[in-house]
Amino acid sequence: MNPIRLYGMRGSGNCWKPAALMQHLGIAFDWVEIDIVNGGSRTPAFLAMNPNGKVPLLEVDGRYLAESNAMLCYLAEGSPLWPTERWQRARVLEWLFFEQYSHEPGIATVRYWIKYLGKGEAWAEKITATRVRGYAALTVMEQQLARTPWLTGDAPTIADIALAAYTHVADEGGFDLGRYPAIEVWLQRLFALPGITPMRA
Amino acid sequence: MNPIRLYGMRGSGNCWKPAALMQHLGIAFDWVEIDIVNGGSRTPAFLAMNPNGKVPLLEVDGRYLAESNAMLCYLAEGSPLWPTERWQRARVLEWLFFEQYSHEPGIATVRYWIKYLGKGEAWAEKITATRVRGYAALTVMEQQLARTPWLTGDAPTIADIALAAYTHVADEGGFDLGRYPAIEVWLQRLFALPGITPMRA
Repeated sequence: MNPIRLYGMRGSGNCWKPAALMQHLGIAFDWVEIDIVNGGSRTPAFLAMNPNGKVPLLEVDGRYLAESNAMLCYLAEGSPLWPTERWQRARVLEWLFFEQYSHEPGIATVRYWIKYLGKGEAWAEKITATRVRGYAALTVMEQQLARTPWLTGDAPTIADIALAAYTHVADEGGFDLGRYPAIEVWLQRLFALPGITPMRA
Repeated sequence: MNPIRLYGMRGSGNCWKPAALMQHLGIAFDWVEIDIVNGGSRTPAFLAMNPNGKVPLLEVDGRYLAESNAMLCYLAEGSPLWPTERWQRARVLEWLFFEQYSHEPGIATVRYWIKYLGKGEAWAEKITATRVRGYAALTVMEQQLARTPWLTGDAPTIADIALAAYTHVADEGGFDLGRYPAIEVWLQRLFALPGITPMRA
């Protein structure tokens, strides 16, 4: 058995992030599938590992770490994807927090409602309102990626993996990425890196 | 003039975080008040500094950094509040991402709707639903703080500052902190640290 286990749900962008990073870095791990739609992350056994009841959850030598972007920082330590220069590291963190606060809630939520809950029609009004927030986040990314090949400059970092997670499946939430040519080229660039492959739900 | 400027809005927990940290660490800075309720963060001049149009925004030697929790990591570098041990640092990040994804949207939003937008009655249903999420986040904190004096163990870190921001004014969003004795004692402990004082709106 590998010392690292990743509890996650196939098709979840947050769970895809640490998996993609470990595949890229050649870190071996076991995947444990958790069916969150049917309460798999709210069982007493799971809550004992993560009191916040969410996936992904990373197990390293019997210790647990939640929050996908915290995992990226932990796992990328010592690799070029997590720069050590102080300001550059701060810029990576800036994008990681942007992802969780401004991007994920506008894009991943809509995809979840449509793809997993089947509420595309029933929640049409709420979906339209939330998409405005998602498109605003994509516009911020497009502005940056029109200027630099990667989100923080000339080299890929964990910020690119974090932001790509829900961006590359945004079409499943009804988002039209055709409006964002720099994002489209950036995604191609990212998926050309070793070990990083798109999600398959 | 100081080399560090913080663009923020008085009464904003996200803006309070880097200010409290700098006061605690004795880092000099200038505060620039931005009236976000009246569009102050959406002007062309502000968007040129932060394309995401949000406060706080940190200016350091003419460079800009957004996202309050990225600022905490940047500013605390080299201090005991931002541990260097790899797993311990990951645990701090875990709380920082928890704050932005699971805590702030359930607590700060309700406070904003009531205190700044005056929608306490008009949005009663939405507020009740969102409070459930806020109370869930407080419960996760309470579980940890019943076991350790600070969120990541025996010593304060930037995670404690980040989580205290909206927790210590949660009553303004109608939250009853009396249900969380460990949180109340933790807040007293935090405000006993040098330079860290509660927000005054």
